Amino acid sequence: MTADPSPTLETFENPAPERDYEIVHTAHEFTSLCPVTGQPDFATIVVTYVADRLCVELKSLKLYLQGYRQRGVFYEALVNQILDDLVLAIAPRRMEIRGEFTVRGGMSTVVIARSGNA
Amino acid sequence: MTADPSPTLETFENPAPERDYEIVHTAHEFTSLCPVTGQPDFATIVVTYVADRLCVELKSLKLYLQGYRQRGVFYEALVNQILDDLVLAIAPRRMEIRGEFTVRGGMSTVVIARSGNA
Amino acid sequence: MTADPSPTLETFENPAPERDYEIVHTAHEFTSLCPVTGQPDFATIVVTYVADRLCVELKSLKLYLQGYRQRGVFYEALVNQILDDLVLAIAPRRMEIRGEFTVRGGMSTVVIARSGNA
Amino acid sequence: MTADPSPTLETFENPAPERDYEIVHTAHEFTSLCPVTGQPDFATIVVTYVADRLCVELKSLKLYLQGYRQRGVFYEALVNQILDDLVLAIAPRRMEIRGEFTVRGGMSTVVIARSGNA
Amino acid sequence: MTADPSPTLETFENPAPERDYEIVHTAHEFTSLCPVTGQPDFATIVVTYVADRLCVELKSLKLYLQGYRQRGVFYEALVNQILDDLVLAIAPRRMEIRGEFTVRGGMSTVVIARSGNA
Amino acid sequence: MTADPSPTLETFENPAPERDYEIVHTAHEFTSLCPVTGQPDFATIVVTYVADRLCVELKSLKLYLQGYRQRGVFYEALVNQILDDLVLAIAPRRMEIRGEFTVRGGMSTVVIARSGNA
Amino acid sequence: MTADPSPTLETFENPAPERDYEIVHTAHEFTSLCPVTGQPDFATIVVTYVADRLCVELKSLKLYLQGYRQRGVFYEALVNQILDDLVLAIAPRRMEIRGEFTVRGGMSTVVIARSGNA
Amino acid sequence: MTADPSPTLETFENPAPERDYEIVHTAHEFTSLCPVTGQPDFATIVVTYVADRLCVELKSLKLYLQGYRQRGVFYEALVNQILDDLVLAIAPRRMEIRGEFTVRGGMSTVVIARSGNA
Amino acid sequence: MTADPSPTLETFENPAPERDYEIVHTAHEFTSLCPVTGQPDFATIVVTYVADRLCVELKSLKLYLQGYRQRGVFYEALVNQILDDLVLAIAPRRMEIRGEFTVRGGMSTVVIARSGNA
Amino acid sequence: MTADPSPTLETFENPAPERDYEIVHTAHEFTSLCPVTGQPDFATIVVTYVADRLCVELKSLKLYLQGYRQRGVFYEALVNQILDDLVLAIAPRRMEIRGEFTVRGGMSTVVIARSGNA
Repeated sequence: MTADPSPTLETFENPAPERDYEIVHTAHEFTSLCPVTGQPDFATIVVTYVADRLCVELKSLKLYLQGYRQRGVFYEALVNQILDDLVLAIAPRRMEIRGEFTVRGGMSTVVIARSGNA
Repeated sequence: MTADPSPTLETFENPAPERDYEIVHTAHEFTSLCPVTGQPDFATIVVTYVADRLCVELKSLKLYLQGYRQRGVFYEALVNQILDDLVLAIAPRRMEIRGEFTVRGGMSTVVIARSGNA
Repeated sequence: MTADPSPTLETFENPAPERDYEIVHTAHEFTSLCPVTGQPDFATIVVTYVADRLCVELKSLKLYLQGYRQRGVFYEALVNQILDDLVLAIAPRRMEIRGEFTVRGGMSTVVIARSGNA
Repeated sequence: MTADPSPTLETFENPAPERDYEIVHTAHEFTSLCPVTGQPDFATIVVTYVADRLCVELKSLKLYLQGYRQRGVFYEALVNQILDDLVLAIAPRRMEIRGEFTVRGGMSTVVIARSGNA
Repeated sequence: MTADPSPTLETFENPAPERDYEIVHTAHEFTSLCPVTGQPDFATIVVTYVADRLCVELKSLKLYLQGYRQRGVFYEALVNQILDDLVLAIAPRRMEIRGEFTVRGGMSTVVIARSGNA
Repeated sequence: MTADPSPTLETFENPAPERDYEIVHTAHEFTSLCPVTGQPDFATIVVTYVADRLCVELKSLKLYLQGYRQRGVFYEALVNQILDDLVLAIAPRRMEIRGEFTVRGGMSTVVIARSGNA
Repeated sequence: MTADPSPTLETFENPAPERDYEIVHTAHEFTSLCPVTGQPDFATIVVTYVADRLCVELKSLKLYLQGYRQRGVFYEALVNQILDDLVLAIAPRRMEIRGEFTVRGGMSTVVIARSGNA
Repeated sequence: MTADPSPTLETFENPAPERDYEIVHTAHEFTSLCPVTGQPDFATIVVTYVADRLCVELKSLKLYLQGYRQRGVFYEALVNQILDDLVLAIAPRRMEIRGEFTVRGGMSTVVIARSGNA
Repeated sequence: MTADPSPTLETFENPAPERDYEIVHTAHEFTSLCPVTGQPDFATIVVTYVADRLCVELKSLKLYLQGYRQRGVFYEALVNQILDDLVLAIAPRRMEIRGEFTVRGGMSTVVIARSGNA
Repeated sequence: MTADPSPTLETFENPAPERDYEIVHTAHEFTSLCPVTGQPDFATIVVTYVADRLCVELKSLKLYLQGYRQRGVFYEALVNQILDDLVLAIAPRRMEIRGEFTVRGGMSTVVIARSGNA
């Protein structure tokens, strides 16, 4: 009853490629598992980019992020993985992935990775 | 790599049974699945109770709630199920379960069920 | 390309009719038209009820509320109309409809109607 | 009973063309339709610009934005369309359009397009 | 160029007189003058009532409140005056007027008057 | 009983002219009239400047802004007018006037004008 | 250069003695001294009352509260003293004094005293 | 270098025993240890009471609460212990202790115990 | 019973002079007197600096600021005076003093002065 | 029952050393002791860095910060010490430590130190 762990990121043609404009998708309900303890992790994932020829289709992005629901992954690796996958899928002019992870043991963590000069 | 879907609720002796006092546990990171679409649901679950002889052990409550992570369940049924399970486990003097579900299609939902006159 | 203006409210069996418990649906994105000027109105509509035999199905409630998108209706009449329609559909033990309308000319308005002793 | 879908943007003479100063209009109650599902979308649209010879008249801007109420349009295309229409109408020294769309499936989206170096 | 200082409160028939339901109008932009110094006062005025046969028409309420713009009046007298005028106009089952005045000399003031058991 | 519509802006000697330091006065209770409809407008006016030889005296600034209470003026013209009047009165090294106008028809407006490189 | 430490509380006739209505004055800038250390204390003082024949005049209340600026007084005694003085001055139908004191050593304190059934 | 783990609660005479008035002390910086893991716990402790003959002296209350810094104690037992110790020290007419514990594993806990009908 | 009006600012050796690092002290409870009316003024004072050889000792800074409690001083002069005194005492690499004064007659004021390129 | 005062900072390999990306760990529950009075201090510690070859392991960072629980240390020295220890442990490309200390005597303090050009 869960989503496929490796769904395809779908794309569509940038409707205004002549312009550098920003698109920001914020996923408020991201969850994955801790690879050490198997316990659930929760985060907000913010995808900010300037498209070149392609934009990422919103529903496929949602399904892609749901693909991490039952996977064990470290914070730093996760954010870099999402960035690599999205850069591969749409080759944006620039992109930033920001993962804001909830409190564990009194500490919260944010990881921010960029491709291009976003 | 996920938690067992039906973990046991563990209990401990109420340290002050001579007094009616309130205990409130708020789980900020609850998630289950929609039984129709298989899509993830997210909620905050608030457990409020006055113990009689037994209190619910906090870690086992966390694991119990994690047991819903891959199960499909409707909002109204879920809140009543949690109430039934906790009443069975600790027979509280009174108890309230409050589920606050995130926005779906521009609508958010809260369900509140009580046992005794909480 | 808009929704049907008079969709049917669908229902399902109350999963816990032995208990008086509250269900609160909050529609954050309600819009209708002013019957005098034809200008759009915007509101948050909060439906709170205790079910008897039937609950209102969430998606049909969303479509029902979308049915007002192109209809002209006064604030006071609107809130009473929603209450009448829902009472007719599910005969709840008690119900409250709360409409919170956005600022017009420096004034905001709230209308709250109840059926039973909600 | 709805507004004309293609109202004219009216303008007035910039009262202080000797100065580069910013004007920011924020429309808190924008709504359009999803071109795929026909379901309503909701957004806040922020128009920021430095006028050259002309300013956009506020009421005509409101009516222009209301013209999208029953039209199906994608987020990225919408923001670029508003920018193109306003640039055509008033030829500002620079302009930015920011569309902040509400949560759909746990994700919210912001699109920001600029003309000139706003 | 200012509004008439004593506009008439207009009314319309209560669309649901069989029900006791609440109507709340909040005027965020009220201003009058201090009768001692002539300096402007600013307040939020909240009108809450249960209608009997008549409701107060929203636009005429706005104009009525604008009628105080150039009048000198003390806080306590003002709130009681608004209550008297509205009770006279619509004879509500119950009504409350709440005036929240901004800070003067490090002190803010609220005055709340009721008619009936609102 | 209202203030004189054209009060004089009074000044005092800058106590620290050897230093570039910022002074910010925020008037939370500004009101004027719409020149088209005669209806009241409300705004927050923020005056930020670096003084040269003179500072503006606070009470005279308050009376100056109260002078707009019964005058009809457009947003864009108002902010530029305040800037012109203050520059004339104190010849600051730099100055910014920011007018934040309340919601009208679901839209709020901000106008920001600068003199010098503030 | 400071205010007189024991100013008189002035009063005026209640303009609506036929009605039980509430008046709330909130002094955001109260300061006194700690009687043990001589260090300054800061608080918000909230005066809520239903007048009988007399109301307290706002400016004299401000001066009365300023009279504590250089006096050493304990929290509990202070709140009861203000209540006694105001009851003596205006003999209200009921009154509540609430003192909210700022953090000292990681602890904040609130003291609330009532006369009548306020 | 740490405080004594069992300091004495000091008291002073209630300055207004003829009145039932409330005193609320909020300790924002409470910390103790988990008796199972030895890991630090953090909480806000709110002490609300109506004094009879005695009040608790604020500094000794702070030191008393600091006495838990290196002690292992369960949430439910802690709140009841603080209530017992304070009731013993000052025999209040009524008292409530509220402990608000920070998030552990995505769950936060509040425990509220009362003596008398506070 | 009040503090000495001209206490000495005490200093200690910068523990890390090899590094440019920022220290920010925020005094939330500053009060002085208006030199014209003798009425109390209230402000938050923010001291930000990069130390060279010396840091300002926190308790002496508190007492220094308390020294203004009964002194009449204008906003602009006050902020520049604090800056001059602190620069004299510790000769920082750079420093900023920010005074945020509470609302008077509907207007609040902020004054910000800097020494060095802070 | 307390943690070891000098635990080792553990590290792991940077999973994406080819990229400059930011990691931010925020410890919301830091406590140490005042070296003068022995009283507890409380702070939020924010660690921001760009890793080179190594990242700091989250649990060991938590234990390292817990090591200050019973140690007396000044604000300025503490923040510089944490920076020195972390730079030694992981040699980051750049790093910032920000300590936000709670209110003492009406004043709060922030100290921010950087290594590299973070």
